[in-house]
Amino acid sequence: MMTISDSERQALYKVIYSRRDVRGQFLPDPVPEAALRRVLDAAHHAPSVGFMQPWDFIVVRDPELRQKIKEGFEIAHAEASAMFDGDKRDQYGTFKLEGIMEAPLGVCVTCDRSRTGDVVIGRTANPEMDLYSSVCAVQNLWLAARAENLGVGWVSIIHHDHVRKVLGIPEHIMPIAWLCIGKVSFFHETPELEQAGWLPRLELEELIHEEQW
Amino acid sequence: MMTISDSERQALYKVIYSRRDVRGQFLPDPVPEAALRRVLDAAHHAPSVGFMQPWDFIVVRDPELRQKIKEGFEIAHAEASAMFDGDKRDQYGTFKLEGIMEAPLGVCVTCDRSRTGDVVIGRTANPEMDLYSSVCAVQNLWLAARAENLGVGWVSIIHHDHVRKVLGIPEHIMPIAWLCIGKVSFFHETPELEQAGWLPRLELEELIHEEQW
Repeated sequence: MMTISDSERQALYKVIYSRRDVRGQFLPDPVPEAALRRVLDAAHHAPSVGFMQPWDFIVVRDPELRQKIKEGFEIAHAEASAMFDGDKRDQYGTFKLEGIMEAPLGVCVTCDRSRTGDVVIGRTANPEMDLYSSVCAVQNLWLAARAENLGVGWVSIIHHDHVRKVLGIPEHIMPIAWLCIGKVSFFHETPELEQAGWLPRLELEELIHEEQW
Repeated sequence: MMTISDSERQALYKVIYSRRDVRGQFLPDPVPEAALRRVLDAAHHAPSVGFMQPWDFIVVRDPELRQKIKEGFEIAHAEASAMFDGDKRDQYGTFKLEGIMEAPLGVCVTCDRSRTGDVVIGRTANPEMDLYSSVCAVQNLWLAARAENLGVGWVSIIHHDHVRKVLGIPEHIMPIAWLCIGKVSFFHETPELEQAGWLPRLELEELIHEEQW
Protein backbone atom coordinates (compact mmCIF):
# COMPACT_ATOMS: atom_id res chain seq x y z
CA MET A 1 0.00 0.00 0.00
CA MET A 2 1.33 3.38 -0.97
CA THR A 3 1.17 5.49 2.19
CA ILE A 4 0.95 9.27 2.10
CA SER A 5 3.24 10.83 4.71
CA ASP A 6 2.36 13.73 7.01
CA SER A 7 4.44 16.17 4.97
CA GLU A 8 2.86 14.99 1.73
CA ARG A 9 -0.58 15.43 3.28
CA GLN A 10 0.35 18.97 4.36
CA ALA A 11 1.48 19.70 0.80
CA LEU A 12 -1.90 18.60 -0.58
CA TYR A 13 -3.69 20.89 1.87
CA LYS A 14 -1.36 23.78 1.01
CA VAL A 15 -2.27 23.38 -2.66
CA ILE A 16 -6.00 23.11 -1.94
CA TYR A 17 -6.08 26.17 0.33
CA SER A 18 -3.90 28.38 -1.87
CA ARG A 19 -5.76 27.60 -5.11
CA ARG A 20 -7.54 30.65 -6.48
CA ASP A 21 -9.78 31.51 -9.42
CA VAL A 22 -7.41 33.86 -11.24
CA ARG A 23 -8.67 36.68 -13.40
CA GLY A 24 -6.49 39.80 -13.12
CA GLN A 25 -2.99 38.55 -12.32
CA PHE A 26 -1.95 36.66 -15.47
CA LEU A 27 1.50 37.32 -16.93
CA PRO A 28 2.15 36.95 -20.68
CA ASP A 29 5.07 34.53 -20.17
CA PRO A 30 4.62 31.20 -21.95
CA VAL A 31 3.56 28.16 -19.93
CA PRO A 32 6.40 25.58 -19.98
CA GLU A 33 5.38 22.66 -22.19
CA ALA A 34 6.46 20.03 -19.65
CA ALA A 35 4.36 21.67 -16.93
CA LEU A 36 1.31 21.87 -19.20
CA ARG A 37 1.73 18.19 -20.08
CA ARG A 38 1.89 17.24 -16.37
CA VAL A 39 -1.21 19.32 -15.63
CA LEU A 40 -3.20 17.67 -18.43
CA ASP A 41 -2.02 14.21 -17.37
CA ALA A 42 -3.23 14.95 -13.84
CA ALA A 43 -6.61 15.89 -15.32
CA HIS A 44 -6.60 12.64 -17.29
CA HIS A 45 -6.19 10.74 -14.01
CA ALA A 46 -9.40 12.07 -12.51
CA PRO A 47 -12.08 9.57 -11.54
CA SER A 48 -14.51 8.77 -14.35
CA VAL A 49 -17.80 6.92 -14.32
CA GLY A 50 -17.34 3.38 -15.63
CA PHE A 51 -13.69 4.30 -16.46
CA MET A 52 -15.17 6.22 -19.40
CA GLN A 53 -12.54 9.02 -19.48
CA PRO A 54 -15.00 11.22 -21.40
CA TRP A 55 -12.77 14.31 -21.48
CA ASP A 56 -10.83 16.05 -24.24
CA PHE A 57 -8.52 19.04 -23.86
CA ILE A 58 -8.35 21.75 -26.53
CA VAL A 59 -5.26 23.91 -25.95
CA VAL A 60 -5.76 27.34 -27.52
CA ARG A 61 -2.86 29.77 -27.87
CA ASP A 62 -3.89 31.62 -31.07
CA PRO A 63 -4.86 35.19 -30.06
CA GLU A 64 -7.46 35.41 -32.84
CA LEU A 65 -9.31 32.36 -31.57
CA ARG A 66 -9.07 33.62 -28.00
CA GLN A 67 -10.39 37.01 -29.11
CA LYS A 68 -13.45 35.22 -30.51
CA ILE A 69 -13.89 33.41 -27.19
CA LYS A 70 -13.60 36.80 -25.48
CA GLU A 71 -16.39 38.13 -27.70
CA GLY A 72 -18.57 35.28 -26.46
CA PHE A 73 -17.81 36.31 -22.91
CA GLU A 74 -18.77 39.93 -23.68
CA ILE A 75 -22.15 38.83 -25.05
CA ALA A 76 -23.00 36.63 -22.04
CA HIS A 77 -21.56 39.22 -19.63
CA ALA A 78 -23.91 41.93 -20.95
CA GLU A 79 -26.86 39.54 -20.65
CA ALA A 80 -25.82 38.69 -17.09
CA SER A 81 -25.41 42.30 -16.04
CA ALA A 82 -29.03 43.01 -17.00
CA MET A 83 -30.19 40.28 -14.59
CA PHE A 84 -28.86 42.01 -11.46
CA ASP A 85 -30.79 44.75 -9.67
CA GLY A 86 -29.55 48.22 -8.70
CA ASP A 87 -26.47 48.22 -6.47
CA LYS A 88 -25.71 44.61 -7.27
CA ARG A 89 -25.59 45.46 -10.98
CA ASP A 90 -23.21 48.33 -10.31
CA GLN A 91 -20.95 46.12 -8.20
CA TYR A 92 -21.12 43.30 -10.78
CA GLY A 93 -19.83 45.77 -13.36
CA THR A 94 -16.72 46.46 -11.27
CA PHE A 95 -15.58 42.83 -11.15
CA LYS A 96 -12.84 41.49 -13.42
CA LEU A 97 -14.30 38.11 -14.37
CA GLU A 98 -11.92 36.67 -16.98
CA GLY A 99 -8.36 36.79 -18.25
CA ILE A 100 -8.90 35.24 -21.68
CA MET A 101 -6.48 37.53 -23.54
CA GLU A 102 -4.04 38.22 -20.69
CA ALA A 103 -3.28 34.54 -20.02
CA PRO A 104 -1.03 33.01 -22.69
CA LEU A 105 -3.39 30.12 -23.32
CA GLY A 106 -6.81 28.66 -22.70
CA VAL A 107 -7.83 25.04 -22.29
CA CYS A 108 -11.35 23.93 -23.17
CA VAL A 109 -12.31 20.76 -21.27
CA THR A 110 -15.16 18.80 -22.86
CA CYS A 111 -17.26 15.67 -22.30
CA ASP A 112 -17.86 13.09 -25.04
CA ARG A 113 -21.08 11.52 -23.81
CA SER A 114 -21.02 8.75 -26.42
CA ARG A 115 -17.36 7.78 -25.99
CA THR A 116 -17.92 4.22 -24.77
CA GLY A 117 -21.42 3.43 -26.01
CA ASP A 118 -24.91 3.95 -24.66
CA VAL A 119 -24.68 1.91 -21.46
CA VAL A 120 -22.01 3.04 -19.01
CA ILE A 121 -21.38 1.48 -15.59
CA GLY A 122 -22.55 3.98 -12.97
CA ARG A 123 -24.34 6.28 -15.45
CA THR A 124 -27.52 4.21 -15.70
CA ALA A 125 -29.48 5.86 -12.87
CA ASN A 126 -27.72 9.22 -13.12
CA PRO A 127 -27.06 10.33 -16.70
CA GLU A 128 -25.19 13.43 -15.53
CA MET A 129 -22.31 11.31 -14.16
CA ASP A 130 -20.16 11.64 -17.28
CA LEU A 131 -20.41 15.44 -17.10
CA TYR A 132 -19.37 15.20 -13.45
CA SER A 133 -16.34 13.10 -14.45
CA SER A 134 -15.13 15.90 -16.71
CA VAL A 135 -15.63 18.35 -13.83
CA CYS A 136 -13.42 16.15 -11.65
CA ALA A 137 -10.81 16.42 -14.41
CA VAL A 138 -11.11 20.21 -14.24
CA GLN A 139 -10.50 20.16 -10.50
CA ASN A 140 -7.48 17.86 -10.84
CA LEU A 141 -6.12 20.18 -13.55
CA TRP A 142 -6.69 23.22 -11.34
CA LEU A 143 -4.84 21.75 -8.35
CA ALA A 144 -2.00 20.45 -10.54
CA ALA A 145 -1.63 23.89 -12.11
CA ARG A 146 -1.50 25.48 -8.65
CA ALA A 147 1.20 22.98 -7.70
CA GLU A 148 3.12 24.17 -10.80
CA ASN A 149 2.61 27.74 -9.50
CA LEU A 150 0.33 28.45 -12.45
CA GLY A 151 -2.95 30.29 -12.15
CA VAL A 152 -6.25 29.01 -13.54
CA GLY A 153 -9.48 30.93 -14.09
CA TRP A 154 -12.74 29.20 -15.06
CA VAL A 155 -14.78 31.40 -17.43
CA SER A 156 -18.40 30.23 -17.26
CA ILE A 157 -19.98 33.45 -18.55
CA ILE A 158 -20.14 32.23 -22.17
CA HIS A 159 -22.63 30.14 -24.12
CA HIS A 160 -21.71 26.57 -25.09
CA ASP A 161 -22.76 27.13 -28.72
CA HIS A 162 -20.36 30.06 -29.01
CA VAL A 163 -17.47 27.91 -27.75
CA ARG A 164 -18.52 25.07 -30.07
CA LYS A 165 -18.55 27.35 -33.10
CA VAL A 166 -15.19 29.03 -32.41
CA LEU A 167 -13.37 25.76 -31.70
CA GLY A 168 -15.17 23.51 -34.19
CA ILE A 169 -16.47 21.21 -31.44
CA PRO A 170 -18.98 18.61 -32.73
CA GLU A 171 -22.60 18.97 -31.66
CA HIS A 172 -22.58 15.81 -29.53
CA ILE A 173 -19.60 16.97 -27.44
CA MET A 174 -20.46 19.02 -24.35
CA PRO A 175 -18.16 21.92 -23.43
CA ILE A 176 -17.56 21.81 -19.67
CA ALA A 177 -15.07 24.59 -18.95
CA TRP A 178 -12.98 27.32 -20.56
CA LEU A 179 -9.89 27.64 -18.39
CA CYS A 180 -7.41 30.52 -18.64
CA ILE A 181 -3.97 29.24 -17.63
CA GLY A 182 -0.72 31.07 -17.05
CA LYS A 183 1.93 32.35 -14.71
CA VAL A 184 0.70 35.01 -12.30
CA SER A 185 2.05 38.09 -10.54
CA PHE A 186 0.55 36.79 -7.28
CA PHE A 187 -2.23 34.65 -5.84
CA HIS A 188 -4.86 36.36 -3.71
CA GLU A 189 -4.95 35.07 -0.13
CA THR A 190 -8.75 34.69 -0.16
CA PRO A 191 -11.36 34.62 -2.95
CA GLU A 192 -11.90 38.01 -4.55
CA LEU A 193 -15.69 37.89 -4.16
CA GLU A 194 -15.16 37.31 -0.42
CA GLN A 195 -12.74 40.27 -0.25
CA ALA A 196 -15.24 42.45 -2.11
CA GLY A 197 -17.97 41.66 0.42
CA TRP A 198 -20.15 40.05 -2.25
CA LEU A 199 -20.70 36.93 -0.12
CA PRO A 200 -19.09 35.66 3.10
CA ARG A 201 -17.28 32.36 3.59
CA LEU A 202 -19.82 30.03 5.20
CA GLU A 203 -19.00 28.25 8.45
CA LEU A 204 -18.23 24.58 7.82
CA GLU A 205 -20.26 23.59 10.89
CA GLU A 206 -23.41 25.02 9.28
CA LEU A 207 -22.90 22.71 6.32
CA ILE A 208 -22.39 19.42 8.16
CA HIS A 209 -25.47 17.34 9.01
CA GLU A 210 -25.29 14.26 11.20
CA GLU A 211 -27.20 11.17 9.99
CA GLN A 212 -29.96 13.09 8.17
CA TRP A 213 -30.62 16.57 6.73
CA MET B 1 3.09 34.92 -3.19
CA MET B 2 2.87 31.48 -1.67
CA THR B 3 5.13 29.29 -3.78
CA ILE B 4 4.68 25.54 -4.03
CA SER B 5 8.03 23.74 -3.84
CA ASP B 6 9.15 20.83 -6.02
CA SER B 7 8.60 18.33 -3.21
CA GLU B 8 5.14 19.73 -2.47
CA ARG B 9 4.28 19.46 -6.17
CA GLN B 10 5.47 15.84 -6.19
CA ALA B 11 3.27 15.15 -3.17
CA LEU B 12 0.20 16.52 -5.00
CA TYR B 13 0.92 14.27 -7.97
CA LYS B 14 1.45 11.27 -5.69
CA VAL B 15 -1.99 11.85 -4.18
CA ILE B 16 -3.64 12.35 -7.57
CA TYR B 17 -2.09 9.22 -9.11
CA SER B 18 -2.68 6.94 -6.13
CA ARG B 19 -6.33 7.97 -5.62
CA ARG B 20 -8.69 5.07 -6.33
CA ASP B 21 -12.44 4.47 -6.36
CA VAL B 22 -12.62 2.02 -3.45
CA ARG B 23 -15.30 -0.64 -3.26
CA GLY B 24 -13.97 -3.88 -1.78
CA GLN B 25 -11.13 -2.90 0.56
CA PHE B 26 -12.90 -1.00 3.35
CA LEU B 27 -12.03 -1.83 6.98
CA PRO B 28 -14.60 -1.39 9.76
CA ASP B 29 -12.28 0.82 11.85
CA PRO B 30 -13.74 4.22 12.68
CA VAL B 31 -12.55 7.26 10.72
CA PRO B 32 -10.73 9.65 13.09
CA GLU B 33 -12.91 12.69 13.72
CA ALA B 34 -10.07 15.16 13.13
CA ALA B 35 -9.27 13.59 9.77
CA LEU B 36 -12.91 13.67 8.69
CA ARG B 37 -13.12 17.33 9.69
CA ARG B 38 -10.01 18.15 7.61
CA VAL B 39 -11.42 16.26 4.63
CA LEU B 40 -14.73 18.13 4.80
CA ASP B 41 -12.94 21.45 5.21
CA ALA B 42 -10.90 20.69 2.08
CA ALA B 43 -14.18 20.02 0.25
CA HIS B 44 -15.53 23.33 1.56
CA HIS B 45 -12.55 25.10 -0.03
CA ALA B 46 -13.35 23.92 -3.53
CA PRO B 47 -14.04 26.57 -6.16
CA SER B 48 -17.68 27.61 -6.40
CA VAL B 49 -19.49 29.69 -8.96
CA GLY B 50 -20.03 33.23 -7.69
CA PHE B 51 -18.58 32.10 -4.31
CA MET B 52 -21.92 30.37 -3.77
CA GLN B 53 -20.59 27.40 -1.73
CA PRO B 54 -23.76 25.44 -2.58
CA TRP B 55 -22.68 22.21 -0.87
CA ASP B 56 -23.84 20.44 2.28
CA PHE B 57 -22.35 17.29 3.78
CA ILE B 58 -24.54 14.66 5.45
CA VAL B 59 -22.38 12.28 7.49
CA VAL B 60 -24.16 8.95 7.91
CA ARG B 61 -22.86 6.34 10.35
CA ASP B 62 -26.15 4.67 11.41
CA PRO B 63 -26.17 1.14 9.91
CA GLU B 64 -29.95 1.17 9.51
CA LEU B 65 -29.86 4.32 7.38
CA ARG B 66 -26.96 2.91 5.37
CA GLN B 67 -28.87 -0.34 4.87
CA LYS B 68 -31.69 1.71 3.33
CA ILE B 69 -29.19 3.43 1.05
CA LYS B 70 -27.88 -0.03 0.13
CA GLU B 71 -31.42 -1.10 -0.80
CA GLY B 72 -31.55 1.85 -3.19
CA PHE B 73 -28.34 0.65 -4.76
CA GLU B 74 -29.77 -2.87 -5.18
CA ILE B 75 -32.81 -1.49 -7.02
CA ALA B 76 -30.79 0.66 -9.42
CA HIS B 77 -28.17 -2.10 -9.84
CA ALA B 78 -30.81 -4.60 -10.99
CA GLU B 79 -32.18 -2.03 -13.44
CA ALA B 80 -28.66 -1.39 -14.74
CA SER B 81 -27.84 -5.05 -15.16
CA ALA B 82 -30.83 -5.48 -17.47
CA MET B 83 -29.42 -2.77 -19.78
CA PHE B 84 -26.24 -4.69 -20.67
CA ASP B 85 -26.16 -7.34 -23.38
CA GLY B 86 -24.88 -10.92 -23.07
CA ASP B 87 -21.23 -11.20 -21.99
CA LYS B 88 -21.18 -7.61 -20.78
CA ARG B 89 -24.10 -8.35 -18.48
CA ASP B 90 -22.33 -11.39 -17.07
CA GLN B 91 -19.15 -9.41 -16.47
CA TYR B 92 -21.12 -6.49 -14.95
CA GLY B 93 -22.55 -8.96 -12.46
CA THR B 94 -19.06 -9.94 -11.26
CA PHE B 95 -18.06 -6.39 -10.29
CA LYS B 96 -18.11 -5.16 -6.71
CA LEU B 97 -19.53 -1.67 -7.18
CA GLU B 98 -20.10 -0.29 -3.67
CA GLY B 99 -18.97 -0.60 -0.07
CA ILE B 100 -21.92 1.09 1.63
CA MET B 101 -22.10 -1.31 4.60
CA GLU B 102 -18.41 -2.25 4.80
CA ALA B 103 -17.17 1.34 5.12
CA PRO B 104 -17.84 2.82 8.58
CA LEU B 105 -19.58 5.88 7.17
CA GLY B 106 -21.02 7.54 4.12
CA VAL B 107 -21.09 11.20 3.18
CA CYS B 108 -23.82 12.57 0.96
CA VAL B 109 -22.68 15.73 -0.86
CA THR B 110 -25.53 17.94 -2.10
CA CYS B 111 -26.13 21.18 -4.00
CA ASP B 112 -28.51 23.89 -2.74
CA ARG B 113 -29.36 25.63 -5.99
CA SER B 114 -31.21 28.48 -4.27
CA ARG B 115 -28.60 29.20 -1.59
CA THR B 116 -27.73 32.73 -2.65
CA GLY B 117 -30.77 33.79 -4.66
CA ASP B 118 -31.81 33.46 -8.28
CA VAL B 119 -29.01 35.36 -9.96
CA VAL B 120 -25.50 33.98 -9.35
CA ILE B 121 -22.31 35.38 -10.87
CA GLY B 122 -21.09 32.88 -13.47
CA ARG B 123 -24.30 30.80 -13.47
CA THR B 124 -26.26 33.08 -15.78
CA ALA B 125 -25.30 31.47 -19.11
CA ASN B 126 -24.67 28.01 -17.66
CA PRO B 127 -27.21 26.98 -15.01
CA GLU B 128 -25.33 23.74 -14.32
CA MET B 129 -22.39 25.60 -12.79
CA ASP B 130 -23.61 25.23 -9.19
CA LEU B 131 -23.86 21.46 -9.64
CA TYR B 132 -20.32 21.51 -11.02
CA SER B 133 -19.15 23.44 -7.93
CA SER B 134 -20.41 20.64 -5.70
CA VAL B 135 -18.59 18.13 -7.91
CA CYS B 136 -15.37 20.11 -7.39
CA ALA B 137 -16.02 19.75 -3.66
CA VAL B 138 -16.32 15.99 -4.11
CA GLN B 139 -12.96 15.88 -5.90
CA ASN B 140 -11.26 17.98 -3.20
CA LEU B 141 -12.78 15.66 -0.58
CA TRP B 142 -11.56 12.60 -2.46
CA LEU B 143 -7.97 13.83 -2.74
CA ALA B 144 -7.90 15.01 0.87
CA ALA B 145 -9.17 11.61 2.01
CA ARG B 146 -6.45 9.91 -0.04
CA ALA B 147 -3.88 12.18 1.63
CA GLU B 148 -5.28 10.97 4.99
CA ASN B 149 -4.80 7.39 3.70
CA LEU B 150 -8.57 6.95 3.62
CA GLY B 151 -10.42 5.31 0.77
CA VAL B 152 -13.43 6.85 -0.98
CA GLY B 153 -15.94 5.18 -3.28
CA TRP B 154 -18.55 7.15 -5.23
CA VAL B 155 -21.81 5.17 -5.50
CA SER B 156 -23.78 6.58 -8.44
CA ILE B 157 -25.99 3.51 -9.01
CA ILE B 158 -28.88 4.85 -6.94
CA HIS B 159 -31.78 7.19 -7.68
CA HIS B 160 -31.76 10.71 -6.23
CA ASP B 161 -35.32 10.34 -4.91
CA HIS B 162 -34.31 7.27 -2.91
CA VAL B 163 -31.43 9.17 -1.28
CA ARG B 164 -33.70 12.15 -0.63
CA LYS B 165 -36.29 9.97 1.10
CA VAL B 166 -33.82 8.06 3.30
CA LEU B 167 -31.95 11.17 4.43
CA GLY B 168 -34.87 13.63 4.57
CA ILE B 169 -33.32 15.91 1.97
CA PRO B 170 -35.67 18.71 0.82
CA GLU B 171 -37.01 18.56 -2.72
CA HIS B 172 -35.09 21.64 -3.89
CA ILE B 173 -31.71 20.22 -2.80
CA MET B 174 -29.91 18.12 -5.41
CA PRO B 175 -27.98 15.05 -4.24
CA ILE B 176 -24.62 15.00 -6.04
CA ALA B 177 -22.75 12.03 -4.58
CA TRP B 178 -22.94 9.23 -2.05
CA LEU B 179 -19.39 8.62 -0.90
CA CYS B 180 -18.28 5.59 1.13
CA ILE B 181 -15.33 6.62 3.31
CA GLY B 182 -13.04 4.54 5.48
CA LYS B 183 -9.67 3.01 6.14
CA VAL B 184 -8.67 0.37 3.62
CA SER B 185 -6.67 -2.85 3.50
CA PHE B 186 -4.87 -1.57 0.39
CA PHE B 187 -5.26 0.71 -2.62
CA HIS B 188 -5.27 -0.88 -6.06
CA GLU B 189 -2.38 0.29 -8.24
CA THR B 190 -4.66 0.92 -11.22
CA PRO B 191 -8.45 1.26 -11.63
CA GLU B 192 -10.28 -2.04 -11.20
CA LEU B 193 -12.24 -1.68 -14.46
CA GLU B 194 -8.91 -1.25 -16.26
CA GLN B 195 -7.50 -4.38 -14.54
CA ALA B 196 -10.63 -6.33 -15.48
CA GLY B 197 -10.20 -5.43 -19.16
CA TRP B 198 -13.54 -3.59 -19.22
CA LEU B 199 -11.97 -0.52 -20.86
CA PRO B 200 -8.35 0.53 -21.48
CA ARG B 201 -6.65 3.67 -20.22
CA LEU B 202 -6.73 6.11 -23.14
CA GLU B 203 -3.53 7.73 -24.37
CA LEU B 204 -3.34 11.36 -23.26
CA GLU B 205 -2.05 12.38 -26.70
CA GLU B 206 -5.31 11.22 -28.29
CA LEU B 207 -7.21 13.59 -26.02
CA ILE B 208 -5.21 16.77 -26.61
CA HIS B 209 -6.23 19.01 -29.50
CA GLU B 210 -4.17 22.01 -30.58
CA GLU B 211 -6.08 25.27 -31.26
CA GLN B 212 -9.31 23.58 -32.44
CA TRP B 213 -11.10 20.22 -32.19
